[in-house]
Amino acid sequence: MEVAERSEVSAVRWAGEVLELLDQRVLPETERYLRFAEAGEVAEAIRDMVVRGAPAIGVSAAYGVVLSARRRYREAPGDWREAMGPDLAALRAARPTAVNLGWALDRMQACAFNINGDPEPALLAEAFAIHDEDVAANRRMGALGAALIEAPCAVLTHCNAGALATAGYGTALGVVRSAHAAGLIRRVYADETRPWFQGARLTAWELGRDGIPVTVITDSAAAQLMRREPPDWAIVGADRVAANGDVVNKIGTYGLAVVARHHGVKFMVVAPSSTLDPATPDGDAVPIEQRDAAEIWAAAGGAPVGAEAVNPAFDVTPAALVDVLVTERGVAQPPSGRTIAALLRA
Amino acid sequence: MEVAERSEVSAVRWAGEVLELLDQRVLPETERYLRFAEAGEVAEAIRDMVVRGAPAIGVSAAYGVVLSARRRYREAPGDWREAMGPDLAALRAARPTAVNLGWALDRMQACAFNINGDPEPALLAEAFAIHDEDVAANRRMGALGAALIEAPCAVLTHCNAGALATAGYGTALGVVRSAHAAGLIRRVYADETRPWFQGARLTAWELGRDGIPVTVITDSAAAQLMRREPPDWAIVGADRVAANGDVVNKIGTYGLAVVARHHGVKFMVVAPSSTLDPATPDGDAVPIEQRDAAEIWAAAGGAPVGAEAVNPAFDVTPAALVDVLVTERGVAQPPSGRTIAALLRA
Repeated sequence: MEVAERSEVSAVRWAGEVLELLDQRVLPETERYLRFAEAGEVAEAIRDMVVRGAPAIGVSAAYGVVLSARRRYREAPGDWREAMGPDLAALRAARPTAVNLGWALDRMQACAFNINGDPEPALLAEAFAIHDEDVAANRRMGALGAALIEAPCAVLTHCNAGALATAGYGTALGVVRSAHAAGLIRRVYADETRPWFQGARLTAWELGRDGIPVTVITDSAAAQLMRREPPDWAIVGADRVAANGDVVNKIGTYGLAVVARHHGVKFMVVAPSSTLDPATPDGDAVPIEQRDAAEIWAAAGGAPVGAEAVNPAFDVTPAALVDVLVTERGVAQPPSGRTIAALLRA
Repeated sequence: MEVAERSEVSAVRWAGEVLELLDQRVLPETERYLRFAEAGEVAEAIRDMVVRGAPAIGVSAAYGVVLSARRRYREAPGDWREAMGPDLAALRAARPTAVNLGWALDRMQACAFNINGDPEPALLAEAFAIHDEDVAANRRMGALGAALIEAPCAVLTHCNAGALATAGYGTALGVVRSAHAAGLIRRVYADETRPWFQGARLTAWELGRDGIPVTVITDSAAAQLMRREPPDWAIVGADRVAANGDVVNKIGTYGLAVVARHHGVKFMVVAPSSTLDPATPDGDAVPIEQRDAAEIWAAAGGAPVGAEAVNPAFDVTPAALVDVLVTERGVAQPPSGRTIAALLRA
């Protein structure tokens, strides 16, 4: 594990009085932390992708609640709970698809419900708990996922489900880190992941720092890679897993799952139980965030006259295309309504 | 047809004494023609993707031979044929995958073989013939392909197989233009086509000029589009079609064909007979150009320390995933060794 420990990055950290977020929009060129003292600014940072990744935005939102409570308690000590309403709503609305955001806010609200006096210490303790539990879950998933890998192999991943997408260590990349520490990873292929390049910018940066061999490919080169030099596993994270096991994750995950199945490449999804959403029956019931077309045009040099673009940020991978879902509570192999319900009861 | 006629662009044109190429690297922001008077410069322009698209580079190379013959005849009127050797070799080596380049050079060399005196008039006439025949082939393929489309439909395309990729009108986009003129196209979805953005920059520009509704998506969004709002057809061009019907085309074509088959979306390949390569048994025997990794990193903001990238420019789509191959000689439905041999005998 030493390699992974040495260079681990923190996407989200509490710096005494304020929240610090590593600005993921400017990596790998620039490594800068932005500081946030107001919940509204945290909501904006989530929306604008200063921080991204389902678990990381959940943890960030939890700290956002701490900032909101501090401000509202100072303004109106007898009324802070009600006064937090708009801040909580802004945080909740920052991004619609990842369920971890609402999960963390629900948990912080439940904590806030019982506080007397200054709410900051208790809420900060709860945010720290969410943060620490996420790291612990990632470590556990890393071990559980790595145990499924039997021999030194090549892995293909999409987007960034690493330390940067979580409170630390990573989900999909946590499995890669654990497996690499056990000598089980020959090479990681990283889809560049348009339009934000999370693979080329973030996954390549994280794995490069850790000394894990990583090769970036364009998203559309994954199929040929599978035909010519098939990786043993495709391993990705998730933004929401529906009750039936459908996986909502970064746009491109679904196509990757289709080509993986076509080539007999095993498909692993790694996500903490905070990503499971038993209240949503299937993937098609999950709201898919549609982002600004400008995110596509930026790299292409602007929109030609008369042309449109659509920019869905996520897609739905039916459970039937997933070989195994790894959570910190255990694995669902394959994921289904039954195996997921069993995990949630565990 | 009026719409298509009005705004058609010329990627390649002979301007009296020199070759003019529309610089496709800077579209759609800048519309500029570069002029070439030397064959070596034409070879460089092909390699550097000033001009791209299998038929367009074939036509460009034909004009390059005219420029070479002029220069070598002036230098050594008795020896021009032998002196052209290095120019022909440079043109032939400019890009390895598209067979149209070698096809056009073979044809120009055959013409040169029989010339007495100043070779320029005869070679220019042959280059004009190659140019005009390509436009005529595209028109014919447009009609043949459009005849396969039965009702107003949505089409998905990859890369740019349009007027810009040919001597004019286009192969895949020639079918789209013909079908649109017949009222058979509701909308075209264009994969942006990393790393060069031929879809976002060139296809969107061409179709936008023609008033054909076009929506750009990231390459990895094609699978979700097929799942949610399946287009009726995926229509692409080709850089080489092997004797058994395997199609070599822009990286990403193969993955698109896999997801199209998974969703029951019909897959059409449109290419002139100059793209057919009966001497190559199958797609895996075709040299796949590996381009500089910098083409990937440029848009992502540079390579992180320790990360690599690989950048294959083309992939192989097995014939079994193609529903129909449209050539100017007729259609191979489905393409196979037998149906392609029949076309070549026709």
